[in-house]
Amino acid sequence: MINNNYVVIMAGGIGSRFWPYSRISEPKQFLDIFGTGKSLLQMTYERFLSIAPAENIFIVSSKDYEGLIKDQLPEVSDHNLLLEPVRRNTAPCVAYAAYKIAQKDPDATLVITPSDHAIFKETAFVNTLMIAVNAAKNYPYLITLGIKPNRPETGYGYIQFLESEDDIKKVKTFTEKPERALAEKFLESGDFVWNSGMFIWKAKTIIEAFQSFLPEISELFSEVSESFYTKEEAAKITEAYSLCRNISIDYGIMEKAPNVYVVLGDFGWSDLGSWNSLHEIMEKDDHQNVVKANTLLYDTSNCLIKGDKDKLIVIEGLENFLVADCSNVLLICHKENEQRIRDFVAEVKEKKGKQYL
Amino acid sequence: MINNNYVVIMAGGIGSRFWPYSRISEPKQFLDIFGTGKSLLQMTYERFLSIAPAENIFIVSSKDYEGLIKDQLPEVSDHNLLLEPVRRNTAPCVAYAAYKIAQKDPDATLVITPSDHAIFKETAFVNTLMIAVNAAKNYPYLITLGIKPNRPETGYGYIQFLESEDDIKKVKTFTEKPERALAEKFLESGDFVWNSGMFIWKAKTIIEAFQSFLPEISELFSEVSESFYTKEEAAKITEAYSLCRNISIDYGIMEKAPNVYVVLGDFGWSDLGSWNSLHEIMEKDDHQNVVKANTLLYDTSNCLIKGDKDKLIVIEGLENFLVADCSNVLLICHKENEQRIRDFVAEVKEKKGKQYL
Repeated sequence: MINNNYVVIMAGGIGSRFWPYSRISEPKQFLDIFGTGKSLLQMTYERFLSIAPAENIFIVSSKDYEGLIKDQLPEVSDHNLLLEPVRRNTAPCVAYAAYKIAQKDPDATLVITPSDHAIFKETAFVNTLMIAVNAAKNYPYLITLGIKPNRPETGYGYIQFLESEDDIKKVKTFTEKPERALAEKFLESGDFVWNSGMFIWKAKTIIEAFQSFLPEISELFSEVSESFYTKEEAAKITEAYSLCRNISIDYGIMEKAPNVYVVLGDFGWSDLGSWNSLHEIMEKDDHQNVVKANTLLYDTSNCLIKGDKDKLIVIEGLENFLVADCSNVLLICHKENEQRIRDFVAEVKEKKGKQYL
Repeated sequence: MINNNYVVIMAGGIGSRFWPYSRISEPKQFLDIFGTGKSLLQMTYERFLSIAPAENIFIVSSKDYEGLIKDQLPEVSDHNLLLEPVRRNTAPCVAYAAYKIAQKDPDATLVITPSDHAIFKETAFVNTLMIAVNAAKNYPYLITLGIKPNRPETGYGYIQFLESEDDIKKVKTFTEKPERALAEKFLESGDFVWNSGMFIWKAKTIIEAFQSFLPEISELFSEVSESFYTKEEAAKITEAYSLCRNISIDYGIMEKAPNVYVVLGDFGWSDLGSWNSLHEIMEKDDHQNVVKANTLLYDTSNCLIKGDKDKLIVIEGLENFLVADCSNVLLICHKENEQRIRDFVAEVKEKKGKQYL
C-alpha cells in the first residue's frame, strides 16, 4: 500500500516577535523553547511522523538555515529539503512544495504546517487532522484547521464559517488581526475560529487554485518542474524566486477561492507568536512569573524572565514586564507591549547594527 | 629639603554596594567608573602627587589585590605596598602604615585617604588639605576633612564641630549614618559636616593615640616594626593580623580622642558609596537617565543603566530603576532601594554561589 500523505513543514520564518531570544541567525523554530531538549522544528517533525512516512516529509526554508536544519534533522534527505534563495512569503513556498511533490506523486495529499507552533494534545490533533486529510482526498477542497477561540486575541487571524452538521464547514470570510472590539464580537458570535496556519489539500487541488488565482506563480514553478530532483533544481529555483512576487497563501488564494473549508479543532494549540503567548501557556511561580533563567526575585510578579544559563538575574520591583537577556542583547519592556518588539527590532537594525538581530 | 608628607591610600574595600559592577575579584577602586581610562585608585594616586613625592605614597590593601594594584600602579615599589593578609577594618590598616612610615621617618606627616572617592575640584581640595597638613605639623591634632552637606544624606557619617574663627575646628561628636529626621536636623543646624574619611596627622600623634585608645593594636605593630623593610615583614604582619581585632579608626580612636579637629572643605566630593550617588553626580540625558551602556530607551526616565560594552540594552517603560548588566549578573531594582543591594549580595552568596560576587 502506498501512503500518499505528504507533509510540508514551513521553516523559513525569522521569528522577530521573539527577539532577542530568537535571532535571524537562529530563529524561533530552531530553539528549544520548552527546555525539552528538542527544538520546535524537531517537535513538529516528530508530530507528523504519525501522518506520513519520513520520506514524505518535506521542509521548506531559507538557504541560510540549511546548516541548522541538517544539524537538527539529519534524517531529512536533500531532495526533501526545499531551500528558498530569498524570502517570498508563503504562496511561493507552497507552490514549490506542491509542484515538486506532485511530480513525484500526482495523487499526493499535502498537509502544510508551520514549524514553530506548539500543540499540547497530540492525539486530538491527529484525529482532527485525519478528518481534514480524508476530506481533502475525497473532495477538491482547500481545507484549513480552525481553533475554537477562548479569548478575544488580536494577534491571530480569524475564520468565519457557515454552521453545518458536517465536520467540514464552508468558510465565509477571513479576517487578519482584528481590533479588540471586533475580536470580542467574533468571540461572542460563535461562528469564528482562529486560523491555525495549517492547510490540507491534494497537490492537484492547490495547483488548480494557483492556476486560477496566482497564475504567474503557477507558471514559474510549472516551468522549473522538470529540474526537480536533478542537479539543476537549485539554479532554476533561484531564477524562479527572483521573478516571484512576495505574497501569502492566505491573501493570494485562501481569501479568494470558493472551495475553502475549515475543520474545527481543540488540541492545545498556540502559535507561540509572542512573548505573551509564551507567558500564557508556561508554568508560573506563585507570583505568576514565568522564569526561564537563574534568578532571585523580590516584589516581582506577572513577569516573563528569560536568561542564558550562566547568567544570574536579580530583580526587585517589576510587574508585568518581559526581561529577556539573550547573548548580546538585554530587552526590558512591558509584557503587553510586545507588538512594539517589531518596532524595537526595526530601530535596532537601523541604529545599532545587524549583530544584535 | 626633605619632604616629610606621606600619603596612605586605603585600597582594600570590596565595594559590595556597587554590585554587580563591583566584584570581590575587582572592587570599585579598581574600576574606571567615569570612563576616563583611569580607575578610581589611579585617579586617587595621581591626585596626591601634588601633596607628596611618589616614594612617600603608600598603598594598604588586601593580599588578594596585589596583582590588580601592580597592574594599575606599576610605579609603586614593594616597600610602599602594604598587603593585609586578612580584612580587619581601618584601625589596623592605619596602625600598620603609621608604624612602618614612622620607622623610616619619625617626623612624617600622614594623609590617610580612601581610594574610591571622587573629587571634582582638585585645586580646592589641595588647598583645603594643605591647611590640615600644616596644622598637623604644628599641633598634636587628629584632623579630619569635613564636607559641607547639601542634603540630608543618610548614608554618610556626620561630624559636629564647635564653631570658631579658625580654619581648624574642634570636633564635638561623630554620628554614623543617621535616620532621615536626624539628618535633616543636622543639615538645619549648620554645625554638622559629612565625614570624608580622610585623616591628617603626624605619625607620632596617631601612634600616641593608638597607645592610649587601642594599646593592644599599638603593641602588635610596635613588636613587628623591626621586620619592616626586611624579608620577614610579610610573615610578621600575617602573625600580627591574626591576633588583631576588627575595628574602625573612627570607632577605635576618632570618637574617643580629645584632640580631634576638622577642616571644612567644599571640593566636589562624593564617596561614590552607592549607585544612587553615581546617578547624582553623573551627566544625565534629557530624561534624567545616567547611561553607561549601549542602549535604546523608550518611556524611560530617572534610571541608571550600566552595561558591558558589547551588550545592547533595550528598555521600555522603566522609571527610577537601576539596571546593571555586568558580566554574569544582571540586576534590576528600584534605584532608591540601593541599601538593599547588600541584602541581595548576601542572598546571592548564600543561594547562588561565589562566582556571582
